[in-house]
Amino acid sequence: MQYKKRTHTGGELRSSHIGQVVTLTGWVDTRRDLGGVIFIDLRDRYGKTQIVFNPKFSETIYSLAKELRTEFVISVTGKVEKRPAGTENPKLGTGDIDVLVEELTIINKAETTPFPIDDKLDTNEDLRLKYRYLDLRRAPMQANLLLRHQMYQITRRYFDEFNFIEVETPVLMKSTPEGARDFLVPSRINPGKFYALPQSPQTYKQILMVAGYDRYFQIVKCFRDEDLRADRQLEFTQIDIEMSFVDEIDIQTIVEGLMKRFMKEIKGIDVTTPFPRLTYKEAMEGYGSDKPDLRFDLKFADFSDIVKDSGFKVFAENAKKGGVVAGFAVPGGASYTRNQMDNLVDFTKSLGVGGLAYIKLTEKGIDSAIEKFLGNEICKQICEAAGAKPGDNVLVVSDAWQKTYSTLGTLRLEIAKRMNLIDENKWNLHWVVDFPMFDYSEEEKRHVAMHHPFTAPKPEDLALLDTDPTKARARAYDLVMNGNEVAGGSIRIYDSAMQSKVFGLLGIGTEEAKMKFGFMLDAFKYGAPPHGGIAFGFDRLAMLFAGVKSIRDVIAFPKTSSGISLMDDNPSEVDKKQLDELHIKLK
Amino acid sequence: MQYKKRTHTGGELRSSHIGQVVTLTGWVDTRRDLGGVIFIDLRDRYGKTQIVFNPKFSETIYSLAKELRTEFVISVTGKVEKRPAGTENPKLGTGDIDVLVEELTIINKAETTPFPIDDKLDTNEDLRLKYRYLDLRRAPMQANLLLRHQMYQITRRYFDEFNFIEVETPVLMKSTPEGARDFLVPSRINPGKFYALPQSPQTYKQILMVAGYDRYFQIVKCFRDEDLRADRQLEFTQIDIEMSFVDEIDIQTIVEGLMKRFMKEIKGIDVTTPFPRLTYKEAMEGYGSDKPDLRFDLKFADFSDIVKDSGFKVFAENAKKGGVVAGFAVPGGASYTRNQMDNLVDFTKSLGVGGLAYIKLTEKGIDSAIEKFLGNEICKQICEAAGAKPGDNVLVVSDAWQKTYSTLGTLRLEIAKRMNLIDENKWNLHWVVDFPMFDYSEEEKRHVAMHHPFTAPKPEDLALLDTDPTKARARAYDLVMNGNEVAGGSIRIYDSAMQSKVFGLLGIGTEEAKMKFGFMLDAFKYGAPPHGGIAFGFDRLAMLFAGVKSIRDVIAFPKTSSGISLMDDNPSEVDKKQLDELHIKLK
Repeated sequence: MQYKKRTHTGGELRSSHIGQVVTLTGWVDTRRDLGGVIFIDLRDRYGKTQIVFNPKFSETIYSLAKELRTEFVISVTGKVEKRPAGTENPKLGTGDIDVLVEELTIINKAETTPFPIDDKLDTNEDLRLKYRYLDLRRAPMQANLLLRHQMYQITRRYFDEFNFIEVETPVLMKSTPEGARDFLVPSRINPGKFYALPQSPQTYKQILMVAGYDRYFQIVKCFRDEDLRADRQLEFTQIDIEMSFVDEIDIQTIVEGLMKRFMKEIKGIDVTTPFPRLTYKEAMEGYGSDKPDLRFDLKFADFSDIVKDSGFKVFAENAKKGGVVAGFAVPGGASYTRNQMDNLVDFTKSLGVGGLAYIKLTEKGIDSAIEKFLGNEICKQICEAAGAKPGDNVLVVSDAWQKTYSTLGTLRLEIAKRMNLIDENKWNLHWVVDFPMFDYSEEEKRHVAMHHPFTAPKPEDLALLDTDPTKARARAYDLVMNGNEVAGGSIRIYDSAMQSKVFGLLGIGTEEAKMKFGFMLDAFKYGAPPHGGIAFGFDRLAMLFAGVKSIRDVIAFPKTSSGISLMDDNPSEVDKKQLDELHIKLK
Repeated sequence: MQYKKRTHTGGELRSSHIGQVVTLTGWVDTRRDLGGVIFIDLRDRYGKTQIVFNPKFSETIYSLAKELRTEFVISVTGKVEKRPAGTENPKLGTGDIDVLVEELTIINKAETTPFPIDDKLDTNEDLRLKYRYLDLRRAPMQANLLLRHQMYQITRRYFDEFNFIEVETPVLMKSTPEGARDFLVPSRINPGKFYALPQSPQTYKQILMVAGYDRYFQIVKCFRDEDLRADRQLEFTQIDIEMSFVDEIDIQTIVEGLMKRFMKEIKGIDVTTPFPRLTYKEAMEGYGSDKPDLRFDLKFADFSDIVKDSGFKVFAENAKKGGVVAGFAVPGGASYTRNQMDNLVDFTKSLGVGGLAYIKLTEKGIDSAIEKFLGNEICKQICEAAGAKPGDNVLVVSDAWQKTYSTLGTLRLEIAKRMNLIDENKWNLHWVVDFPMFDYSEEEKRHVAMHHPFTAPKPEDLALLDTDPTKARARAYDLVMNGNEVAGGSIRIYDSAMQSKVFGLLGIGTEEAKMKFGFMLDAFKYGAPPHGGIAFGFDRLAMLFAGVKSIRDVIAFPKTSSGISLMDDNPSEVDKKQLDELHIKLK
């Protein structure tokens, strides 16, 4: 197909081009026939330009133009004209001009698309994913992928400026499942053996520190074979960072610099650094989450001391045996109806606690069903501790520490949503630090690493590793943006003996540790520097900056929650010959 | 471990710092004890600095310093001093100063390393790969990885400037083996189904063009499960490019701009664009290779017409039945001894042809064993056609076209090597264009795509697809640097009917085409733009720029030719539980 190549892109022409003969190429976006003249918006990645086919100018071209349907690919040549007064389109950069077409080539035709190429598309997502090449033509999707492009460039320029070295780590790595499941890749040359896709390049980046690279970064694909939740993909992208001879503050400072640049270049917002730091304990006891959304307040108060000698047995006994009675004041919540409160109580119970108590503070005083157990004075103390003002409603949960706070955390978000307390134009960034080293997994009957097995304990908690490991805190930190964990990292262990000790606490025996991580334990014997790092969830960060609700909207070719690519019907069955060569068969 | 953090890096201190108290961190590189004083070169990624422990200054620090061994990680604080006259080290940027140590912390000790951390290391590669974290400490390896880093940044800045959009394509893609074997990844959620790792993101980048992205690039990992040759890896890196509304020249021009920038920023060399273009036919008939090394001449001449009526039956009959008699003049080759010639004849025969004839042109005239068959006059004509001068030696091969030229091509390289004709400081860049569409595979008894199945035929050769497909030329082009193919690309088919036709010629039936590539054939029906692209072999390019002989020297964690990572013993056996979950078992 012969066609004239473009002289300008679809977003380029302005009044200053009037009178020039230009050639444009692109897709037929919309077509209007008005008074015997055909008007078409010609679209490409760069914008739209109105082109005009006038039979008075050329009957031949006009006739050919009548064949044009949406999504035809064409090349047109013509003169740039000023649009008649009153017909300008201020929404388009090119809205002051149009092009009167003198030559038209239909480069490729298009069948009727299964959905229109509209900015606001109302169709089911499966259809969008099946015809992803059409979905990706829509302006909002193109904006999302361009945002991703911009984020890639900002990230790399930033780390390059700060002397970080970009290193590609292997995709075919060793299987060391710890936490999530590995994707496995059978080796043809080594029968019975398997590679694994990286859940993260953690071991490699630490090896690079041992190798003296000092500052490493990479934007890297990682893989977790987990059951997909709404906001997860089997493969996802991380900004991966590691530094030597540093402490937590050094790493956090580098990260704050990057976030500052993102906010400035993408959102045009100046953010102040350093970001506030909350300990894990403060975050949980204040907001019931290790990634609290601080765009709104609703901070918790602990009522345990107030109620522990009260006549309300449920509270008193829980407080005495080390549980927590805590809650927060809902501003204006005294106006909640009986119905609204019943609904909230049910919601809270569905989270697995016994119930939700509440104390309304009205102009007349306390209004609460539990006043008769607690007494008026204690109710007042609770309201005061919660900072309640007349018209507020203090919600109270009583259970074990973890359960009380996580329930209150969910309740806090729910209240914020119901009362519309979240300002979507606000950007809140803060750190959560001093996470516990371990969680005790009831399921596996062992300690599991809260961050990962390479995280260093806080020096002042070293003794706790021998006495009460669950109390030991880690040199771990998460970056939280608007209630989302966008990055998580830690200072690492760099000593063979300490690493072996932590493996032991995690129930990884000496033999297993040697088999899986022997090379790291060895590496630490040849002069390992102190080091630490962090990794960003790139997809989620892009989603937040794009202001969309699904990470699938910022990924070019995502998979469904069943791990399927609907466009190309992937995964698929393969030839028996392929499996034979890989020394495997189906079960 | 408490230690003082560095104030400067190991390559930073200069005379201007004399008198300042500084802190450095790093590795003990070399240690000398001289006149009761200990001198250590402290090393980090940025350079080396000499630090001095003098018992006269501090007996305590000096005693501690005696414990220091190579590769210990330390932090030292002290005053920057001018080195005594005559002890400066002009090889180091820091060679005018040293640091008299006042404080020393041993941060981490090191066992004796299995090989020294020397620039010129003489040990076997397996040991280097096993202790990669030590190998990567060596300055030449750090320089190679820094070069890679630089190449990444140059590439991305370049494409960003030219409005290309960086898009990440999936790693878990559909298995469509065509050419090389796929790596397969069993799906846990979809029993009996498999993902494949991309051999290239070819289909995705074409889909992005259909989606209107106009200009795409990505630095991307690709995977081929092939038996490894010296300079191949199971996973390798490509610079991947695709553009819409373009022809060959547009793509080549963009690529030339990138190469120009690489050469300037990495090598400090200005190269002239456009690069010369040779057709595949010219390359084969002139230099016997589709990636000829043009840093030296030794161009071939075709003697078929000269010899076809001669009395030398071997030549005459081959020429008459359509074969080729061709060769080239070796400058000064008339001085080759009988022994050298026998050796060359054997070398040539080992390539699979019947023999090698030669005609020496001396000051006295022709000196050749075949003169008695060809006659003096024809021998002279051959010498003249080859451009031989007295003292030269014309080597002649007679066989079918392909065999003759590929043999001569190998011979040409061998002669260049033996006669030291290649100037390693020269950089030669050129294009080879107009490749055939198809190769006929005797093994598979079918046509195979010379480039790949999505490559468009040249418009003037369309008719040949029906009559003599092997004669049809493709809109394909390779970029050749110093005899290496560093990039290869083509203008693509963008029409469903033509794509189906080419699939058919490749023996891919309608059903199979639909199953494997149905989504592309569909996509082409909804308004596909003309497009084309190219992909660079990034590892090989880095190898050439680094001036090293193996791509393993420019890859942080390469695998051996058996696909094994010696450092972490990968691939490895996995738990039966893992295989059960993936619905597979070992054969």
